[in-house]
Amino acid sequence: MKMESFTKSAEKFIKALGIKDMDTELMIRALCHSSFANENTFLNLESNERLEFLGDAILDFILAEILYTEYSLSEGRMSKIRSAVASESILSRAAREIKLGDFLLLGKGEENSGGREKDSLLADAFEAVLAAIYLSKGLEDAKNFIEEVLKKYIEQALSGELVMDYKTRLQEYTQKFFGLRPEYRLKNKEEDETFSVEVYLDGKLLGCGKGKTKKKAEQQAAKSAYEKFLNEGENDA
Amino acid sequence: MKMESFTKSAEKFIKALGIKDMDTELMIRALCHSSFANENTFLNLESNERLEFLGDAILDFILAEILYTEYSLSEGRMSKIRSAVASESILSRAAREIKLGDFLLLGKGEENSGGREKDSLLADAFEAVLAAIYLSKGLEDAKNFIEEVLKKYIEQALSGELVMDYKTRLQEYTQKFFGLRPEYRLKNKEEDETFSVEVYLDGKLLGCGKGKTKKKAEQQAAKSAYEKFLNEGENDA
Repeated sequence: MKMESFTKSAEKFIKALGIKDMDTELMIRALCHSSFANENTFLNLESNERLEFLGDAILDFILAEILYTEYSLSEGRMSKIRSAVASESILSRAAREIKLGDFLLLGKGEENSGGREKDSLLADAFEAVLAAIYLSKGLEDAKNFIEEVLKKYIEQALSGELVMDYKTRLQEYTQKFFGLRPEYRLKNKEEDETFSVEVYLDGKLLGCGKGKTKKKAEQQAAKSAYEKFLNEGENDA
Repeated sequence: MKMESFTKSAEKFIKALGIKDMDTELMIRALCHSSFANENTFLNLESNERLEFLGDAILDFILAEILYTEYSLSEGRMSKIRSAVASESILSRAAREIKLGDFLLLGKGEENSGGREKDSLLADAFEAVLAAIYLSKGLEDAKNFIEEVLKKYIEQALSGELVMDYKTRLQEYTQKFFGLRPEYRLKNKEEDETFSVEVYLDGKLLGCGKGKTKKKAEQQAAKSAYEKFLNEGENDA
């Protein structure tokens, strides 16, 4: 792949986003996964990892400001709504809506293992793109971008419509703070056909749940564990 | 205490910070601890808790931008430096330097239990003040404020001079994410006069350390536990 071709690709993406006079090099950096930079060292490209760090902070800040000024929520509610909207599952959805995957620069291994469709990779690149917009165009353009692509998810989170996938949330949480995935254990199947599931982290019981299906019981267990973590955080805050 | 008197107090604080045309009402809100708002409901004041949430996000963002653009650090290093600078111990030090405690509005109970000197209360109010500056004066003034009061701590963190109080950091970390304090257990005092300490969270061993004094052994134990948490977070990120 030649420099020209991915310059064109980045320009196409910028145009699709409707941003004028954006720094193309910054956008290329936002689209450049570490696997691509590592495979093409002769191009001397920086990957999007540093931009992602900055974008993560910009996103948290813009969402906090929107929730503070436009909705006047309590700090506990702001925290919950923000963590729902800034979750990997929502950011990867938003990334798909702006067709971010089509423009990503991936190494061969990552491409072959379906990297273009990975939630984590898309969510990270989304944050990097936000940082690139901020650095090139300033805070107002970054805010406009977020309002455009995430406003509907904020509204959904506020009205409780946002699909509450607690297993995803719990996993994101435990991965981030403990570096571990939760483990679900099916207990007895009771006489009344109710499933009972316990969820563990590192051998420690986090919560349990019941439901008519195994899936529902797991969601319940994840919900009870996730809410315990949030409450711990809140009591301390 | 009359409305006039704390309006004057907030104005004095604004003047001491050298900020022009700042919204006094916003500054009063930043200085208003929940204990004061709750005790004086007739004043109909909002406490600084919502501002603190916003200020926390602004601080993380401003520090990320400084570390990204001025120092060009890797994401792992940005993350470590930022968490050192945005820690309760550093923010409360910065709050003391600008004499924030003198201007805080506290309820009687909080005042009597030494709230004006509490690290957590000072650090929270520092973040609320930052948010008030941002909302009243914009991003540039907020950045200038941070550069003025925190730049030296960034430099110290970068050069490794920042006193690495690992016990404080570990406690901040476990309180935030687990709602629990670590517990230190002195093990044997060995023949060569070396102290050996283990640190536990919720009965689980986090790390251990040795040193010529009990204090040094505890710092070592806290360091090993804290670094494990950071590495877990990084491997996953």
